[in-house]
Amino acid sequence: MKLETPVLDLVNSPEELRKLDENQLHALVDDLRAETIHAVSHTGGHLGAGLGVVELTVALHYLFDTPQDRLIWDVGHQCYPHKILTERRDRIRTLRQGGGLSGFTKRAESKYDAFGAGHSSTSISAGLGMAVGKSLDGEHGNVIAVIGDGSMSAGMAYEAMNNAGAMNSRLIVILNDNDMSIAPPVGAMSAYLSKLLSSKSYLSLREVAKKIAHKFPDPMEKAAARAEEFARGMMTGGTLFEEMGFYYVGPIDGHNLDHLLPVLRNVRDGEERGPFLVHVVTQKGKGYAPAEEAADKYHGVSKFDVVTGTQHKAKANAPSYTAIFGETLTKLADEDDKIVAITAAMPSGTGLNIFEKRHPDRTFDVAIAEQHAVTFAAGLACESYRPFVAIYSTFLQRAYDQIVHDVAIQNLPVRFAIDRAGFVGADGATHCGAFDIAYLCCLPNMVVMAASDEAELARMTATAAHHDQGPIAFRYPRGEGVGVDIPEKPEPLEIGKGRIVRDGNTVAILSFGARLQESLKAAEELSARGISTTVADARFAKPLDEDLIRELAERHDVLITIEEGSIGGFGALVTDFLVKNDLTQGLKVRPLYMPDMFLDHDKPDVQYAKASLDAAAICDAALQALGIEQALDTKDKRIRN
Amino acid sequence: MKLETPVLDLVNSPEELRKLDENQLHALVDDLRAETIHAVSHTGGHLGAGLGVVELTVALHYLFDTPQDRLIWDVGHQCYPHKILTERRDRIRTLRQGGGLSGFTKRAESKYDAFGAGHSSTSISAGLGMAVGKSLDGEHGNVIAVIGDGSMSAGMAYEAMNNAGAMNSRLIVILNDNDMSIAPPVGAMSAYLSKLLSSKSYLSLREVAKKIAHKFPDPMEKAAARAEEFARGMMTGGTLFEEMGFYYVGPIDGHNLDHLLPVLRNVRDGEERGPFLVHVVTQKGKGYAPAEEAADKYHGVSKFDVVTGTQHKAKANAPSYTAIFGETLTKLADEDDKIVAITAAMPSGTGLNIFEKRHPDRTFDVAIAEQHAVTFAAGLACESYRPFVAIYSTFLQRAYDQIVHDVAIQNLPVRFAIDRAGFVGADGATHCGAFDIAYLCCLPNMVVMAASDEAELARMTATAAHHDQGPIAFRYPRGEGVGVDIPEKPEPLEIGKGRIVRDGNTVAILSFGARLQESLKAAEELSARGISTTVADARFAKPLDEDLIRELAERHDVLITIEEGSIGGFGALVTDFLVKNDLTQGLKVRPLYMPDMFLDHDKPDVQYAKASLDAAAICDAALQALGIEQALDTKDKRIRN
Repeated sequence: MKLETPVLDLVNSPEELRKLDENQLHALVDDLRAETIHAVSHTGGHLGAGLGVVELTVALHYLFDTPQDRLIWDVGHQCYPHKILTERRDRIRTLRQGGGLSGFTKRAESKYDAFGAGHSSTSISAGLGMAVGKSLDGEHGNVIAVIGDGSMSAGMAYEAMNNAGAMNSRLIVILNDNDMSIAPPVGAMSAYLSKLLSSKSYLSLREVAKKIAHKFPDPMEKAAARAEEFARGMMTGGTLFEEMGFYYVGPIDGHNLDHLLPVLRNVRDGEERGPFLVHVVTQKGKGYAPAEEAADKYHGVSKFDVVTGTQHKAKANAPSYTAIFGETLTKLADEDDKIVAITAAMPSGTGLNIFEKRHPDRTFDVAIAEQHAVTFAAGLACESYRPFVAIYSTFLQRAYDQIVHDVAIQNLPVRFAIDRAGFVGADGATHCGAFDIAYLCCLPNMVVMAASDEAELARMTATAAHHDQGPIAFRYPRGEGVGVDIPEKPEPLEIGKGRIVRDGNTVAILSFGARLQESLKAAEELSARGISTTVADARFAKPLDEDLIRELAERHDVLITIEEGSIGGFGALVTDFLVKNDLTQGLKVRPLYMPDMFLDHDKPDVQYAKASLDAAAICDAALQALGIEQALDTKDKRIRN
Repeated sequence: MKLETPVLDLVNSPEELRKLDENQLHALVDDLRAETIHAVSHTGGHLGAGLGVVELTVALHYLFDTPQDRLIWDVGHQCYPHKILTERRDRIRTLRQGGGLSGFTKRAESKYDAFGAGHSSTSISAGLGMAVGKSLDGEHGNVIAVIGDGSMSAGMAYEAMNNAGAMNSRLIVILNDNDMSIAPPVGAMSAYLSKLLSSKSYLSLREVAKKIAHKFPDPMEKAAARAEEFARGMMTGGTLFEEMGFYYVGPIDGHNLDHLLPVLRNVRDGEERGPFLVHVVTQKGKGYAPAEEAADKYHGVSKFDVVTGTQHKAKANAPSYTAIFGETLTKLADEDDKIVAITAAMPSGTGLNIFEKRHPDRTFDVAIAEQHAVTFAAGLACESYRPFVAIYSTFLQRAYDQIVHDVAIQNLPVRFAIDRAGFVGADGATHCGAFDIAYLCCLPNMVVMAASDEAELARMTATAAHHDQGPIAFRYPRGEGVGVDIPEKPEPLEIGKGRIVRDGNTVAILSFGARLQESLKAAEELSARGISTTVADARFAKPLDEDLIRELAERHDVLITIEEGSIGGFGALVTDFLVKNDLTQGLKVRPLYMPDMFLDHDKPDVQYAKASLDAAAICDAALQALGIEQALDTKDKRIRN
């Protein structure tokens, strides 16, 4: 079925958009929405968020002088309509594909992406920086940050509001209130917004015009009026945002261009100094019935059939690591009422939705608030609970100081379940779990594990549950396991002990985490070429299994370490141990880890190949160390698959 | 002059305190204040904060069942009166001395220290965790978090409020409003609190009693009343805290026991579920005239004369690294109007007070808000400014995700000036700058430098100013420089190039940062023993000077790396390079870094000795590697001094 988009076809850039008559915009909105749905049905990706901001996207580019005016999309997953309007329609069906458009905003991709994102709640800070820069330059351009209500729970957004509210920079924050983050939002701010909406009706067109255009007729009156506004806001029911120093406008129906356009135009043309907060109410998935009806299921989608809404999910060969973690923890908690679980707004992403079904009173969704999540867990540990904090590797970066200061220094037994460790495929660099091994292994008191398959993950979950001596972390990759059986009652591991999986005597591959399967493939290939190869599963990066490492070093000519993480992690600890103990004499050591660059989104296999972390790369490293250079075609399919 | 403290002499523990008559408490407060001043005059430390909470400390321990009720002091620097009352008076004159009491709360030190601190804004999160733990246990104990108004600017405190406000746990947050953090507080929240105070008078005793005791006569009415309270708060001028789901009580005069006691007693005895915020107004330095008059100068003090208030500061031999950074940046900014500087509430701690005097319009104090500080800087970098973010190593941990996600991934040229890198002496483990090398060097695009003396720091500041290609960080220690001349116009360094400072051919010491002086001492000692020793200043941990390392490896028998940081940093990068290039054959490598433990507060020299990072330890490492074991007494004074 050919998609007809006559008005959108006229618009390849915001400049062209701004040549349209205002009365053409309704048709443009329809075209843009249809194009978004059609594109995502081919690529998969974030659907609901983009559909919720189609009108807003059109209105902003129509009224503001992008890219000179800076438009920042918080998180960036709602930017597909924006990408279509900003010279990228021709590539929109490459979204999230290798070599194609990023699924988020990205400065390197377009001058219209004023700030790249992926993580939430950064837009107000970045926007304030830009607004201050423009002020210092003496420019009068605009900076617009569009942030969802879910993102407002993060402390970073509050820090930025606290700073912006005390400054005189022109910053327009658009609160895109769809009562939804990935999961339904939680917390007092969310409740506050709901109350705010229920206590106020949408501004009428006349009120809109009055509220902005005629509020401050001249500078002197303006200052006086603002002082009065403050006082009135404070004493007679102003909003929290006004109390934080913002001009508050709203709520406005974000799907009604006849309201959006005059409000935004007036905000744009106002002479006020100081930040605005425009409260826009939208519906996630707006205009596509299946997405409207099940906003959570259409937050991120697979390819789907536009007419029926049916998603084409690739059939899984094995349960996901996420599910195994959730199920194992649930079972452990059945027998241990001290186990509690904490998520930062990702119950289903982390598998804690499984836990929550059975143990709702012991599940805590603290909103997008990783810092608080970790210290809240530390408080629970002080009361002899066994908290599991389930946060993706990349998001745990938000809580680094809390891990150091509140958990590690006090040696409190907080358990860190670190999902999405390593490459994550289509989400790309912002979501890659690259640094956790490095940033955790340098901390005293910390135990750091990585699971080589889903059965190991179950055992590590049990190990963490039993480890009351201090903090412990275990990491595992995105996606499905390798298909091994899960033990009914997983046994805890001995802390700091690895295992030899396959024995040989020339090359030793010491794997930390789920690259074990590729290590075994490499070992087979090497052995087929007459090179006897050992494979060991380190299980622990901290504490190291020093006996195992010593044995591998003494019994082999080459020692390869491999991990799905950055430099400074497992390989660094092993190498440090080796040189300190003079174990590298006569031994070639080849630490394999992620390259020193941020890899773009792509299929995981391509990412592994690019990163030289697949079986072929392991073989290459071994052969190179043995002096058998270029003996193997690194593109050899036998090894890569 | 003997200090007379007759009532305090009766009280060695909160249990004994609770046996006093209420009318004895005024006298106790006087004694406790005098004892605090007297003790700190001997030890130095944080004075003003403790003096501001003497009455509050007495009231809390008198009314609550500590340690069963959990009392959490945010930051912990105001806890000296608390320590005196909780079985530690006999050791109070060992505060911040090696082997003595910590200057902060510390779980390992006392059961009365419910949560350790040092960094700000953690108390509400920890307290909520404890309160939830008690609820799950079915206990009805209390959890009290005392947090300053300055700490309320940090996002973490907001995240915790957002979560607490939506939960039913009994948590009492005491907002200790002294209109002061270390510097005068900034930001919208601070302005809000000022307005709140100016618009309300202190609660009268009768109002206090009425407000709490009779608010909710029975459970049903209570629920209805709470709903009404919410509605009323929202619509008719309730405070921001009520909008966040807290019962707000205040403001109360925090130096008036006749108000504090009934309010806190009523809060304690109330049947309400859900969190309380008790707004207590205090004065920093209260009751000691010199501290009242100059709160900033008495935030942290040296030993001082109680009568005159004169502080006995040790005479500096050289300007501090902090001052050299501030002065150099100021001069650079005189000639480059794109340089801007950002601090998170530490203008004088970071030397930016110097910068601010000359360039007030380009100085941004964003409050205690490290996350926002970094992304705000990223926004400025997008507008072609040259932002310098000056944050201590330990506090930069708060902004780790922002460094990764907003700066490194986008390769934005944000400059990180990292003061207090390494051991910090009396502030101890919570403030130790141990991890920045590890957590920064693993990031693609990042350049990481460390200054070996203050002239190098000046050059690195200039290097950072000139480096527009991407992010760059430079670290330098606490305290004074070594006394070298500062170049009038510091030349930028070549990126990734170190220098040989002293040439030899048996042992090579490759130093990253200010341990260079100890390296030179060690080299002299070794050379005096006939062991020819090279010393090199790496300058860069990232990118590594590979030519230099290769040369050192090939020309020497032993290569020692040294840095004032954790494992996983500079030494790990060097070792990785060595093994990958097969440079360890015939070479002994000895990476020296901080031990894998959190060291307690002590004199810096003692910390270096304990950590084996002084000249003696370098010599030991060299001799051990050369097989000359135990040849040198490691306690040899010649080497240590």
